[in-house]
Amino acid sequence: MPLLVVGSVALDSVETPQASRDDVLGGSAVYFSYAASYFTSVRLVGVVGEDWPNEHTQLLQSRSIDTQGLQIVHGKKTFRWRGKYMTNMNDRETLEVHLNVFGEFNPVVPEELRKCRYVFLANGLPTVQLQVLEQMHSPQLVMADTMDLWIVEHRDELMKVLGKIGGLVLNDSEAKLLTDEENLVKAGRLVQKMGPRFVVIKKGEHGAMFFSEHETYVLPAFPTERVVDPTGAGDSFAGGMMGYIAQQDRFDPKTLKEAMAYGVLVASFNVEDFSLDRMQQVERADLDRRMVEYKQMLSF
Amino acid sequence: MPLLVVGSVALDSVETPQASRDDVLGGSAVYFSYAASYFTSVRLVGVVGEDWPNEHTQLLQSRSIDTQGLQIVHGKKTFRWRGKYMTNMNDRETLEVHLNVFGEFNPVVPEELRKCRYVFLANGLPTVQLQVLEQMHSPQLVMADTMDLWIVEHRDELMKVLGKIGGLVLNDSEAKLLTDEENLVKAGRLVQKMGPRFVVIKKGEHGAMFFSEHETYVLPAFPTERVVDPTGAGDSFAGGMMGYIAQQDRFDPKTLKEAMAYGVLVASFNVEDFSLDRMQQVERADLDRRMVEYKQMLSF
Repeated sequence: MPLLVVGSVALDSVETPQASRDDVLGGSAVYFSYAASYFTSVRLVGVVGEDWPNEHTQLLQSRSIDTQGLQIVHGKKTFRWRGKYMTNMNDRETLEVHLNVFGEFNPVVPEELRKCRYVFLANGLPTVQLQVLEQMHSPQLVMADTMDLWIVEHRDELMKVLGKIGGLVLNDSEAKLLTDEENLVKAGRLVQKMGPRFVVIKKGEHGAMFFSEHETYVLPAFPTERVVDPTGAGDSFAGGMMGYIAQQDRFDPKTLKEAMAYGVLVASFNVEDFSLDRMQQVERADLDRRMVEYKQMLSF
Repeated sequence: MPLLVVGSVALDSVETPQASRDDVLGGSAVYFSYAASYFTSVRLVGVVGEDWPNEHTQLLQSRSIDTQGLQIVHGKKTFRWRGKYMTNMNDRETLEVHLNVFGEFNPVVPEELRKCRYVFLANGLPTVQLQVLEQMHSPQLVMADTMDLWIVEHRDELMKVLGKIGGLVLNDSEAKLLTDEENLVKAGRLVQKMGPRFVVIKKGEHGAMFFSEHETYVLPAFPTERVVDPTGAGDSFAGGMMGYIAQQDRFDPKTLKEAMAYGVLVASFNVEDFSLDRMQQVERADLDRRMVEYKQMLSF
């Protein structure tokens, strides 16, 4: 089944202790789309400025990502983010944010995409997420991401989002902030009670936790020596997970766990280079080979 | 097979955001012994002062832990530690340390225990660990723990220990400190090259990683809402792991992974209350029930 994603499309500048890159392809909807494209066809809704290199659009299209929903605003610039990773490659500092066109992002889902049954609302203003939802014709599964800023400053609107979605993905510090609870198991269960059918807490290098009414589990990250740039790990996790769900066209407990595992593996490749560089070298068969290793690692 | 452990026996005072306890049974060799006692008979070598409550010795003996190697020094006091956990229940601050008799710990392994084939050198001065090793009659598997202080201040002696043991357990920050490497996968592989046949990096609430020449894997912690006191989690992990190895009397890759999983599960019970309180309510059958859940959690 096709999968619709609405979110940021960006030009990122990233500094790590080892190397740095300027103005590379990024944004939550981009990482998500590429990751999901291993499994299903993707419809991307986003906005860029006139400085957007057309080759980026071509790259996405080469992966069967439909970009008719990618609006180009002339006379304006693309969203830019500059960040710096600390030596642990986990903590990062945002050095610059220029929202540019993304600051006035008012997503209009093209009519023929409104019937998509699988929808991902990447991290964005909760009011914008709600606005997208209103345009959709009864989707089967909606998943969303969020961040600390919305938890603190737009809590009421975020709670409305939580009441309307099937799955929420957020990271560990966000789950603690949202629930004021330090124990992640308690935090995940509390978030799940706020509305979503299931909640995924992303723990970066430590993997991800899943919570539904009847299930709680953890899957570890795939251990890799090669962590070059963690940018987009969470979005490629979500893309791998939801791409698999949309491909399978079901989200029973068994499928959700397999989907989580694919999310973990796509993210494990994504961090191996800057931007989408590593993912561009990876095919579905590479994911399936790593899946064999991953399952073996968890069997005893 | 019987398992010998040499290490600290203490009276701990623990403060957590929710509650606190004074002068409760603790020490690395105590947590290790109790955890290992689910699987095999244990020989404990340690030292206490004349303030040591005899009921603690009786409790250990009730678990088939041989305490003939527990020396009581009259006119002196037992090792005392006071610590305080932060709200995340992971970071802790040491408020007081009174080494007392443990400061002059000069372990003499009783003659009949020197033929034990399985030996655990709990965290202690590397020179003392070496001294214990010299007393043993060709043990089959020796595992050891260490800490930041020895890594920084007794590095040469620690390297000698690493050259003589089969397995090292240490926590994530210690592995980074020992190797000056922030990526835990790289760090684990580097530690393994320092001598031990295998290395286990304990990651607290995130589980544990295993490294041998041919294998690298991660097992997540068992997700629990009830984290009352994390003191002794690492030692009960090691005790569960090595207890199972000694019981099986082998340490092939398959057995080591099963042993890691038992270590994870014993630790998951241990943190559910202060001191050994929760472990005292748990039997081997409880571990096996949790093992079924744990395996199910990791299957998909």
